[in-house]
Amino acid sequence: MKKTAGTSRNHSLFRQVYDYILNHIERGEWSVNDKLPSVRLLAEELKVHRLTVFKAYRQLTEDGKVYVKDKSGYYVSANNAVIEDGAIVSSYIQSSQLSDIQRIPVKYQFSQALIDPNLLPNLYLSDYVKKVFDMYPKVMGTYASVQGDDELRESLSQHFKEHHRLQLSSDELLITSGAQQAINLIAQMMLGTLDSVLIERPTYSVAMDIFRRQGARLIPVNISPDGYDLDEVEHLMRTYKPRMFYMNPTHHNPTGYTVPAWQRKLLVELAEHYQCLIVEDDPFRDIFFDEKPPLPLFAYDTEGWVIYISSFSKYIAPGLRICAVACRFPFMNQLIKAKSIADNGTPQLNQKIFLHYYSSPRLQQHLDKLRIALQIHKEIVEEELDRAGWEWTAPQGGLNLWVKLPGEISAEALYRKSIEQSISFVPGVICDPLGESKSWIRLSFSFANEALLREGMQRLAALSRTLEVK
Amino acid sequence: MKKTAGTSRNHSLFRQVYDYILNHIERGEWSVNDKLPSVRLLAEELKVHRLTVFKAYRQLTEDGKVYVKDKSGYYVSANNAVIEDGAIVSSYIQSSQLSDIQRIPVKYQFSQALIDPNLLPNLYLSDYVKKVFDMYPKVMGTYASVQGDDELRESLSQHFKEHHRLQLSSDELLITSGAQQAINLIAQMMLGTLDSVLIERPTYSVAMDIFRRQGARLIPVNISPDGYDLDEVEHLMRTYKPRMFYMNPTHHNPTGYTVPAWQRKLLVELAEHYQCLIVEDDPFRDIFFDEKPPLPLFAYDTEGWVIYISSFSKYIAPGLRICAVACRFPFMNQLIKAKSIADNGTPQLNQKIFLHYYSSPRLQQHLDKLRIALQIHKEIVEEELDRAGWEWTAPQGGLNLWVKLPGEISAEALYRKSIEQSISFVPGVICDPLGESKSWIRLSFSFANEALLREGMQRLAALSRTLEVK
Repeated sequence: MKKTAGTSRNHSLFRQVYDYILNHIERGEWSVNDKLPSVRLLAEELKVHRLTVFKAYRQLTEDGKVYVKDKSGYYVSANNAVIEDGAIVSSYIQSSQLSDIQRIPVKYQFSQALIDPNLLPNLYLSDYVKKVFDMYPKVMGTYASVQGDDELRESLSQHFKEHHRLQLSSDELLITSGAQQAINLIAQMMLGTLDSVLIERPTYSVAMDIFRRQGARLIPVNISPDGYDLDEVEHLMRTYKPRMFYMNPTHHNPTGYTVPAWQRKLLVELAEHYQCLIVEDDPFRDIFFDEKPPLPLFAYDTEGWVIYISSFSKYIAPGLRICAVACRFPFMNQLIKAKSIADNGTPQLNQKIFLHYYSSPRLQQHLDKLRIALQIHKEIVEEELDRAGWEWTAPQGGLNLWVKLPGEISAEALYRKSIEQSISFVPGVICDPLGESKSWIRLSFSFANEALLREGMQRLAALSRTLEVK
Repeated sequence: MKKTAGTSRNHSLFRQVYDYILNHIERGEWSVNDKLPSVRLLAEELKVHRLTVFKAYRQLTEDGKVYVKDKSGYYVSANNAVIEDGAIVSSYIQSSQLSDIQRIPVKYQFSQALIDPNLLPNLYLSDYVKKVFDMYPKVMGTYASVQGDDELRESLSQHFKEHHRLQLSSDELLITSGAQQAINLIAQMMLGTLDSVLIERPTYSVAMDIFRRQGARLIPVNISPDGYDLDEVEHLMRTYKPRMFYMNPTHHNPTGYTVPAWQRKLLVELAEHYQCLIVEDDPFRDIFFDEKPPLPLFAYDTEGWVIYISSFSKYIAPGLRICAVACRFPFMNQLIKAKSIADNGTPQLNQKIFLHYYSSPRLQQHLDKLRIALQIHKEIVEEELDRAGWEWTAPQGGLNLWVKLPGEISAEALYRKSIEQSISFVPGVICDPLGESKSWIRLSFSFANEALLREGMQRLAALSRTLEVK
């Protein structure tokens, strides 16, 4: 960076210094509450006049990116989030808070919406894999195509037609390495800085991390046991012209709620009318307790405004990381391009293993057993919740309960105590795009076994009583 | 977007319209030479005054993003690239041209730097896999950690110590799904819009696509059979203050050249001095013909300015997509965060399969045989090149030859003819950050078998003679 005379060059120099500092903050090299380099030091480093650096800091302070403390220097503001018109503009967040929680090893694991590996068909699958190698001896010797294995996409398009009434050709399917990669690719394809995204409140926290990383503006849409308030959805679409609505309408994470069929049709109409892409994330469809959920929104969409993310490998073999994304042209072309940049294709081996189990009759037998096992898990937790006097709405499916703590108990206070006792859950604040829901928690009942669920829930309730007394 | 009075709001409205158009171009929704919406239409769509749209188009025209044709309207400029001080500022390119070429099925496949699956230990590996399932029966039931399997990272850190004198703890290794994902994660971590990146000329075209997608500015560094011109490298580091130098210094793709050991030491010193991260991509280290290559730059780095990407699975089991990235803190922390956003971890199954083969004595036996086979492949192509009178520098390793076509033959003209005859190769222009090298081609000798290599090369030479006559 060189010093030059002239107002216009000076202005652009100011801009460069401003951007330099902001880039460092956004890339996380300078973290929240870090002290920033002094004006003198930065001026020397960038070989610009001190006044230019001073002006850049002053503008960053005005813009809420930086704050001044005790006149001792400049510091990075908390997460660079600005509330504006009730929406949230949030800068690039590099980490997923959820994965931080899940990294802590605990005995009573209620924070992972994963299925107990003992409930998965492990031995059966390992026999299957041997067959896969006999069928495709060179499966590890070649790359898959970017879009995904032909045979797998063909089989999935048949399955979707038979089970969910989705009219799909295999060309309208892309295989990704897990649903999270799918969301990330869609975000990269669709979102620029300050583009608006409708997102449920509460929602899957990793999705928020991904959209924020793209610089998007999150507009919360409340989800209740009855679905959304469609007037609110329409108002938000009209007001914010969002690029997309990311939703998880079936056995929703974290609440377990399911959006009713009549709303699904109207939502597709709203999406068409306001040209707002619906990203329908559907990982829990097959985990229902009493009756099958309504058809996906994708089934009602005739104009190509829904992208459908189906990640069944969670309840078959999560370690395979296989997910299918269904969408129409031209979105599919763009998604394939994004996938080709990201990793050039999901490993062929994983696709072939998945394919053979997925298309076997064993899959339905496994699912029947799994649903019963998970319903028992859920009922154990519900019994203990009832005993503790906590509030929740019984979900029709999924792996989680969304629970309101009694009284004024703070979920974060309970969380800190729980971790000490080797119990983990997800504090509601992590799932809330507004950073509220402070007395809500997400309890996943799918990972711990029955004995640990019972014992852990009783311990958790006891812990919460100690907080109530205070 | 609402109309409001007042200069400052109008200015910000102008900015929003400007960014709206630019975002659509950068996301590829409006492609090069596409006609853009008329001022009237866009003004209606965005509910702003026509003058605002007109001003935005005018500014975009000035900025070279858009051009006016025959007074009939506004069009997207060619790839939004601007030459400035000899460097290239290029906007987000969504697709990889290389993968387009490789998608075409041909009989004489010289465009893929992949190893003929018949040269890989397929049957042996498939027996191995069965053992892996006996050892880890639940390997498909759980997610891997974000950073990668502990056992694999431990084993790799031992291997790097023994074979390449790299002092590495397993905490300084991250497992990714292929080298391309590693490059993409590093780019996301390090690069903001208009950050400068040094890149070899010619280079791996996918890397250019990735950096351009981040909005980076590519600064070419020539690579010759003797390595780089270090004075040029220093001049470029001083002038452009690049965030990183992406290099492939060992059996370089596409040329096969290897940067000598004496330059490696000095390059690490330059990187430290100019605080320019070196991203050392090293996929071909074990494919040498006569003698082992010099140690990686990473081995000379004491200050943490080198990130080392090691992707051996290319010559073991490409279908597994296993790559290891070595780097020091704080870069490692940031990389783990980027990986957690991208896909939350590479599948455990693939890591365990790879681990067990990688740590077996069979690996070295396989490599010994593979090197001989590839050397024979290379020599067949070189015999035919010699006969055709084409120019190239014999590489010390790798999978490719970088070849100058005789006379004024255009590689793109030859490519078009070749594809008709079911022969593919990579035109040099795709590997050149300046978009030149128009009479150079990359020939990969690793994929086709010996008979097809001989036959295909003779056909290619004959085709080129028909172009010469004209």
